[in-house]
Amino acid sequence: MAVIDINADLGEGFGRWELGDDAALLSIVTSANVACGFHAGDPLTLRRVCTGAVQHGVTIGAQVSYRDLAGFGRREMDVPPDELTAEILYQIAALDGIARTQGGRVAYVKPHGALYNRIARDPVQAAAVAAAVRAYDPALPLLTLPGSAVFAAADDLTVVAEAFADRAYTPDGRLVSRREPGAVIHDPEAVVRRAVAMAVDGEVKAVDGTPVPVRARSICVHGDTPGAVGLARAVRDALVAAGVTPEPFA
Amino acid sequence: MAVIDINADLGEGFGRWELGDDAALLSIVTSANVACGFHAGDPLTLRRVCTGAVQHGVTIGAQVSYRDLAGFGRREMDVPPDELTAEILYQIAALDGIARTQGGRVAYVKPHGALYNRIARDPVQAAAVAAAVRAYDPALPLLTLPGSAVFAAADDLTVVAEAFADRAYTPDGRLVSRREPGAVIHDPEAVVRRAVAMAVDGEVKAVDGTPVPVRARSICVHGDTPGAVGLARAVRDALVAAGVTPEPFA
Amino acid sequence: MAVIDINADLGEGFGRWELGDDAALLSIVTSANVACGFHAGDPLTLRRVCTGAVQHGVTIGAQVSYRDLAGFGRREMDVPPDELTAEILYQIAALDGIARTQGGRVAYVKPHGALYNRIARDPVQAAAVAAAVRAYDPALPLLTLPGSAVFAAADDLTVVAEAFADRAYTPDGRLVSRREPGAVIHDPEAVVRRAVAMAVDGEVKAVDGTPVPVRARSICVHGDTPGAVGLARAVRDALVAAGVTPEPFA
Amino acid sequence: MAVIDINADLGEGFGRWELGDDAALLSIVTSANVACGFHAGDPLTLRRVCTGAVQHGVTIGAQVSYRDLAGFGRREMDVPPDELTAEILYQIAALDGIARTQGGRVAYVKPHGALYNRIARDPVQAAAVAAAVRAYDPALPLLTLPGSAVFAAADDLTVVAEAFADRAYTPDGRLVSRREPGAVIHDPEAVVRRAVAMAVDGEVKAVDGTPVPVRARSICVHGDTPGAVGLARAVRDALVAAGVTPEPFA
Repeated sequence: MAVIDINADLGEGFGRWELGDDAALLSIVTSANVACGFHAGDPLTLRRVCTGAVQHGVTIGAQVSYRDLAGFGRREMDVPPDELTAEILYQIAALDGIARTQGGRVAYVKPHGALYNRIARDPVQAAAVAAAVRAYDPALPLLTLPGSAVFAAADDLTVVAEAFADRAYTPDGRLVSRREPGAVIHDPEAVVRRAVAMAVDGEVKAVDGTPVPVRARSICVHGDTPGAVGLARAVRDALVAAGVTPEPFA
Repeated sequence: MAVIDINADLGEGFGRWELGDDAALLSIVTSANVACGFHAGDPLTLRRVCTGAVQHGVTIGAQVSYRDLAGFGRREMDVPPDELTAEILYQIAALDGIARTQGGRVAYVKPHGALYNRIARDPVQAAAVAAAVRAYDPALPLLTLPGSAVFAAADDLTVVAEAFADRAYTPDGRLVSRREPGAVIHDPEAVVRRAVAMAVDGEVKAVDGTPVPVRARSICVHGDTPGAVGLARAVRDALVAAGVTPEPFA
Repeated sequence: MAVIDINADLGEGFGRWELGDDAALLSIVTSANVACGFHAGDPLTLRRVCTGAVQHGVTIGAQVSYRDLAGFGRREMDVPPDELTAEILYQIAALDGIARTQGGRVAYVKPHGALYNRIARDPVQAAAVAAAVRAYDPALPLLTLPGSAVFAAADDLTVVAEAFADRAYTPDGRLVSRREPGAVIHDPEAVVRRAVAMAVDGEVKAVDGTPVPVRARSICVHGDTPGAVGLARAVRDALVAAGVTPEPFA
Repeated sequence: MAVIDINADLGEGFGRWELGDDAALLSIVTSANVACGFHAGDPLTLRRVCTGAVQHGVTIGAQVSYRDLAGFGRREMDVPPDELTAEILYQIAALDGIARTQGGRVAYVKPHGALYNRIARDPVQAAAVAAAVRAYDPALPLLTLPGSAVFAAADDLTVVAEAFADRAYTPDGRLVSRREPGAVIHDPEAVVRRAVAMAVDGEVKAVDGTPVPVRARSICVHGDTPGAVGLARAVRDALVAAGVTPEPFA
């Protein structure tokens, strides 16, 4: 019987500013990538999301980032590796400490935004992130992109690949760059269908129509755009209807 | 045989900016109030100070603060209590997690600057700080001013009073306000003499010359002004010469 | 023939986070209080709002604040006066320079949030704000609360009083504290009726039903809550229907 | 008769943290690159440096940067060009407004740290910086590295090349990378000798001993390391003794 994890970003407001519908997502996902304060996420929001995650049985992950509130962590930064390791460590520790006061704990780490993309191809920053996880708790899995440089940099750690139901894939299994047309799939029915194909068949149709294997233990959904929550719920419902059990990977 | 703790603020640089001589202080103090990133203290500095503290057998405390890098945490802020609790929690957790990767841990909490002063008289913010400590680890002592509102707000926690060798006291045992002349004692010999009197006799001469009892388990020294490190070392040496053993309180 | 200014806060997003509907408000207000980056407002947002304001003939004001992104400038801070003056100066200058590149300019200053409230009763901070305006351009009016300490602190400057259509007034013309029930009027029809009474008759009914004079050259509306933009437009339409011409005060 | 500008970075403290000796540098340099608050420089410091610059007849330049206090602007960031333009504009405007209240004004723009290096080779970010200068005041010169991509991106603006007395040059006139040995010259006498050679002869010996032309209207000195101020003064004195008049370029 197939199982799949569904993950989404939560806790991405900051003070007066809200983003996404954390409450709704907590009833959909099995894993919450919780912002840690460097690209988003004030301490009160972090605590509230952790409380909700524990109540809903949702697994908590540390969504670590570059220190960049103004850019929402979406701008690559040339952070020296020892500094990056310390910054990642700080974020994991802050969220884990808050999670524990609510009866939970950080169970995995998922880098955010530009850091996620950077460490997919930059072995130095990938190693810096891995060093932080190794120092904090070598049992913590890293959730990342298939083919990421993280796999090599963290070969003594658990690295888990995720898939994106709303992103187009190349025939060799990589994501089509967002700079190319058709990179993001907007048709809700197509997104739902692809999520099911990924979870049930372990494959999806690439941009050229050829089937490409996508072996992912987790599917990433989004909650910060109009209609996103409804689509996330539709993905979950379709997975369940197809006999796939939503289940945290960590 | 008398024992006394000697505490000082460490880790108060931020990125390019250095402040104080952390390395020198680690060979003097028994307890290090380590900045947690909200008024000072970048993650790399925090980690380095924790490493040094563990090497020197210095106890690590979380020097929690308002979120105010521009004001170095010296400006009182009307932070709502639940927000303040979450912010304190975040800081303790971040430092504790980093300390643990270096073989140490946060063993006490000392509020910094304007927060320290505010919670000495504001029961609401005092309760908010106490709530954070209680949630994180109710066994963590709070280091604070004698007579502070923290004692009432945290009567289920351990609250430890500290004394200031370089501050003048009123006849009823409070600190002379920094706005009044003579509030800070600049004569190194007087500072040293007063530290010994506090530790050995448990009393010090008030501004009017009358002896006033100062029962403190810890003496606070400073390291961020010219000559401060030399004075801190002189205080320690004089305490040892007077038969007082420097020993962490936590 | 009666004229009235209608002002609202604009540009209060920050990076990824949006707040309020700036585009809609620009077709309603005659004066835009534009955030300057200290409580909200990234440079790109500032420039976009200035462009829109110039296109719509809306007057640009500098909505200056404490440096507090995490608290949205809503937490009072004990900023020393010379520091506060320099911070206000920095904000006015930054926005004015951006506005000028779009063909506009800062034509008035309106303190935001906690600073607005603080300087209504604190002569020291009020003087610090006035000093910044005086240094930058003594011809710039300050928009503030009737009865504010700003009037005394800035008696050589132009200080303009504003009224709040959605706030209850005491019989002696002050705002009912938000901590008391009924402080904010939620009935849209009542808000519209009161705005017209303020502009046409120069008076409004106090909480005890007695008429109280409200001589304001500007009425403040809001845009950051659900329904707020619709209400702001209704206020404007009712004013026009009552023969009052919306016109900037500066 | 030869003239040369001497420029240095000033105002790079932030709140409690000081950096460099602004007062001493103001009696040495002819142009002050004043931090604008994004990598360093709080508003009070900016105002104080502007006051001093006006008193000493030192020309004020805007030392614009990425928004990165934690990294002191030394980490390259992939800021989208329109965002970068708005951020640069904000900084120039803020400093210029403060300078004008002290009787001065921003007379040139010098990008700082990682931004300086990035725009030397990245035409997109170089164009974004040029766009900000063009929008604010197309008469403002940009001070930069010889050979920088800024020259092409800002060919309608005035771009002024500077030289570095304490940096080694390649035979083709570029700076030896800091990653290579010998990139920075530490011998004070050599630094002084090279500064004179640059100003008088317009050339300097490259790392291989061959003379290389260095036609610079300004020489950059530093003030934030031990001995730096003394060295800067020695450079100035030697230039004067060699008959070169220190004179602002802007």
